Amino acid sequence: MDKTIPVPFTSVKITDGFWKKRKELNENVTIYAVRDRFIDTGRFEAFKFNWKEGSDIPKPHIFWDSDVAKWMESVAYILAEKEDKILRSQVEELVSLMEINQQEDGYFNIAHTVVHPEDRFKIRNNHELYCLGHFIEAAVAWKESTGSDRLITITDKYIDLVIRIFCVERSAEFVTPGHEEIELALIRLYRLTKNKKYLDLALFFLNERGLHNEGLTDWCNSSYNQSHLPVRQQREAMGHAVRACYLYSAMADAAKETDDKELLDACTNIFNDIVHNKMYITGGIGSSHHGEAFTVAYDLPNNTAYAETCASISLMMFADRMKDIILDSKYADIVEREIYNGIISGISLDGKAFFYENPLEINLSDRNKHTSMKQEPERLPITQRQEVFSCSCCPPNLTRFFAGIGEKVFSENNDSVFLHQYIPCTALMGDMTISVETEYPVSGKIKINVKNGTGKYLCVRIPGWCENYSISESFESVGGYAKILIYSDEITVFADFVMEPVFYLCKKDVRANANKAALMYGPVVYCFEKFDNPYINHWSLRFDTEITPEVIYDKNYSCNILIAQAFEIENSDKLYYNIKEKKENKVTIKLIPYFAFANRGESDMTVWFNI
Amino acid sequence: MDKTIPVPFTSVKITDGFWKKRKELNENVTIYAVRDRFIDTGRFEAFKFNWKEGSDIPKPHIFWDSDVAKWMESVAYILAEKEDKILRSQVEELVSLMEINQQEDGYFNIAHTVVHPEDRFKIRNNHELYCLGHFIEAAVAWKESTGSDRLITITDKYIDLVIRIFCVERSAEFVTPGHEEIELALIRLYRLTKNKKYLDLALFFLNERGLHNEGLTDWCNSSYNQSHLPVRQQREAMGHAVRACYLYSAMADAAKETDDKELLDACTNIFNDIVHNKMYITGGIGSSHHGEAFTVAYDLPNNTAYAETCASISLMMFADRMKDIILDSKYADIVEREIYNGIISGISLDGKAFFYENPLEINLSDRNKHTSMKQEPERLPITQRQEVFSCSCCPPNLTRFFAGIGEKVFSENNDSVFLHQYIPCTALMGDMTISVETEYPVSGKIKINVKNGTGKYLCVRIPGWCENYSISESFESVGGYAKILIYSDEITVFADFVMEPVFYLCKKDVRANANKAALMYGPVVYCFEKFDNPYINHWSLRFDTEITPEVIYDKNYSCNILIAQAFEIENSDKLYYNIKEKKENKVTIKLIPYFAFANRGESDMTVWFNI
Repeated sequence: MDKTIPVPFTSVKITDGFWKKRKELNENVTIYAVRDRFIDTGRFEAFKFNWKEGSDIPKPHIFWDSDVAKWMESVAYILAEKEDKILRSQVEELVSLMEINQQEDGYFNIAHTVVHPEDRFKIRNNHELYCLGHFIEAAVAWKESTGSDRLITITDKYIDLVIRIFCVERSAEFVTPGHEEIELALIRLYRLTKNKKYLDLALFFLNERGLHNEGLTDWCNSSYNQSHLPVRQQREAMGHAVRACYLYSAMADAAKETDDKELLDACTNIFNDIVHNKMYITGGIGSSHHGEAFTVAYDLPNNTAYAETCASISLMMFADRMKDIILDSKYADIVEREIYNGIISGISLDGKAFFYENPLEINLSDRNKHTSMKQEPERLPITQRQEVFSCSCCPPNLTRFFAGIGEKVFSENNDSVFLHQYIPCTALMGDMTISVETEYPVSGKIKINVKNGTGKYLCVRIPGWCENYSISESFESVGGYAKILIYSDEITVFADFVMEPVFYLCKKDVRANANKAALMYGPVVYCFEKFDNPYINHWSLRFDTEITPEVIYDKNYSCNILIAQAFEIENSDKLYYNIKEKKENKVTIKLIPYFAFANRGESDMTVWFNI
Repeated sequence: MDKTIPVPFTSVKITDGFWKKRKELNENVTIYAVRDRFIDTGRFEAFKFNWKEGSDIPKPHIFWDSDVAKWMESVAYILAEKEDKILRSQVEELVSLMEINQQEDGYFNIAHTVVHPEDRFKIRNNHELYCLGHFIEAAVAWKESTGSDRLITITDKYIDLVIRIFCVERSAEFVTPGHEEIELALIRLYRLTKNKKYLDLALFFLNERGLHNEGLTDWCNSSYNQSHLPVRQQREAMGHAVRACYLYSAMADAAKETDDKELLDACTNIFNDIVHNKMYITGGIGSSHHGEAFTVAYDLPNNTAYAETCASISLMMFADRMKDIILDSKYADIVEREIYNGIISGISLDGKAFFYENPLEINLSDRNKHTSMKQEPERLPITQRQEVFSCSCCPPNLTRFFAGIGEKVFSENNDSVFLHQYIPCTALMGDMTISVETEYPVSGKIKINVKNGTGKYLCVRIPGWCENYSISESFESVGGYAKILIYSDEITVFADFVMEPVFYLCKKDVRANANKAALMYGPVVYCFEKFDNPYINHWSLRFDTEITPEVIYDKNYSCNILIAQAFEIENSDKLYYNIKEKKENKVTIKLIPYFAFANRGESDMTVWFNI
């Protein structure tokens, strides 16, 4: 293991560029928009524990605690950089309600207290431990950001109850959670507090998983929540994608904390299964809406892609943890793929609306085609983002992602500091200061200034997409990183990762992408939207992959757009006609970043083009 | 109108070749196989009217009468050429049971007499008039073939009841049938008997359709059974495909019998809508299993294609009627497309098993991919033919199709005889004898001998697929037919419709076939089956359309197979890779006739190939 520790969000200040804008949008718009929808839907009110059968306030749902917990966690990250009294007081109000309504024995779960207390710790898929996990994450972030122990105190008391019920008395009606999350949260709390009881409980849940014939229900197999095998024997990504990657993240955390090579081996195998067999080019995972789940290798349909926003976030979390254990740039490459594509496609450019599902192709003609039947029978992803969902896990997952992005930039160990993501920022690591300037992902030129780091190494990720690059200082290539000796009190490194539009093919086993190509520019995946190419159906095109597309900056996206050349087939009078009669015309096609699709209303869209 | 009358099956003897084999298989195997399954399932026993609640015989279903009626009609065609005492006596036994069990007032419907008599003429979609229609068709064929009036007598009595209930008393709870069929059957009976009451009843049902807000149910719109508009105002093919084309066939019949140009205009518009917008290259129609229905123009998905066998038969019937009204070879071209592709794909090469649905693509990896979920949620067509279905309309529709194919070959009017389908046969038309020799569809060479036809014209269809042809006698091209004067007592015409493999493209609006081609040789559509190309996934190929495939006769299919050249993409270690790393290898691909797919077990299959 080549362990590093992330440089925390409290030490990294984003100073400019793509992510500064995104963070500001998050702080100024999204965090409030999510809050308002949570207020509208009763999620905040629920903390008063005042719902009763027959009352006219909305009935609390078993997921709701976790939605609000992620929102609280988001606020914690925001407050680390910028005081916002409204947000602070709203979190504090929620924490006060938690203090008031936490049960005598430490239990805290809204739905399982006011709606169905009889189900406490009885139904494995009821998300009680999942909700606690998110409260723990919020508690850690709140402590790190504000110094306050109030949430820590609440969750600690609840965790003690969980230890008693699950580990000592074993009186719960299941052994391990039906939706993983608490495991990684507990290890986060352990890292903060060094209190080993948290690590032990996390390891208990990890070690017991797959040993108890848990998970089989009338609608799913035990692989749905990764209970089909003991975790160390798991080699493939299976089941519900978010559950899966939250588990794998915890497995990586546990492997790191306990030097468990067997567990790490499971992690590397599962990671490879995902990125070699089951991941969209956008980083999307969980290709099917059936179970929001991984299916089999190479099953990556584009127009029905589920690719939940939270699943992309969860894979980013898994990859981001792996980068701190194994020195291999492929892990940070996946973080990069997610943050520029599959995650941020989940939010509108105005910061107010969200996709749960992130399809890679939309054909509006597929909708309402059953003119003689009363209902539209095919299930397809929605084509426009919504402000809230009944299961609204993705919006607050995005707010905490944007607010916490700083922690993805650097990690360090005793002799090196690693620069993983190219985001303009200033970071403090003890005496050392690093500042990064770049227009990334608009350009691959990076300027890195290091002060007071003499004798350490600066390890700069060479992006996986990059074929040609230059670095102004001498370096050794190690695990995909350029390892540069910091030889004086101040050095400035110029790196140029040459970006140019690249057509990508997909492994031949993937039927959905056969005879097609996708376009990327650096880490950004592009898409065709009919808005930019009216009167053209994307499927009637054949892209000219010999001509390198033109690159133009577009401030609407804080990113480049591409202008590609293609042939459009001429129409024919006949439904079927001899290929000898084929005629094509040259057309120019505008492509926008995939993350920006569906911001101008409904439109046909595709990531994969005929070639 | 340029009317002709088909030369009846009683006057045309198939003498050799593809269809002789198919007819013999039908007479020797299929007619018995269908009978046996109908006996197994209680469909024959039901004619005893002895089912009662609690009895241990199967409960008669509302479709069953029609299944058996089509089987009886099939036997009639068979007996016209070949005595078969077993089949004859079984039909006669059924007729005897009908005579015994026909109700006093003329009503005959098994399910509505023994199972739910309270529903008589109350539920529009309950198929009572549809079943009567098929009994009428059987009665006409039985009379033409055997001279017996027994079935005619039964149906005549029932029709008188229908006239009283529907036209005089108007006491039924609907005005027009929920499943068309009786209209075309009544006109057939009118043509046989010249009794105008049958034509009048047919016209009543046609004229009343669409006037009464009928058809809307809780699951379908009124277009599902073509009740959304008066028939003369209909311009598009809509709704359940079999219902639709049975209606359109009757509309064509009525237009012909009454010289109704408005009705004919509706027929031509609807026909064009089907063949220009809504028909698979195989002739399959009704692309969706939702309602077994037409959807919108250009919606022709391959792997979920419904393309019911009966729907292909019904379009053939519609086209075959149109060819007798308008002198345009496009109608007989569609008959040809159906009989070599979409219809006969519905039956196994051993004559014993059937497809209800006829997909144009099978990918076995689409099945059972939801490993973490208990059920396979996607509905896909079955991959192997079955011996019988609960709704088993297609098998006896095929037996009557094969047995009655002779009637598709010729039609005539006062001055001309038209040769529409190239089938080796001898036909008698008054004094004139025509014999046809050909290996069609193995070759396009046709030899036509005409005796005693001096002064008439022989009009030979120039197939729509044919680019180069020669005809040994001088001719005038009229409506896609070569019009040849029969200038002596005996002439022999040699026609050579040059067949070569042709790659076809599909109109650009059809997304499913974008950047793909299909291969035909003459009228036969070809397909890739993995059986012939093991270790190759069809989607990893790109066909070389510059090289004309090799043509080889294969006796297994009584047809040619094709050997095409393609490029297979090399595998990649990476899921996504730069197009610069693309490598392809040349491969040779064997293609079989589409009608022969799925005869060797489950296999991947496709009609449309990447190019």
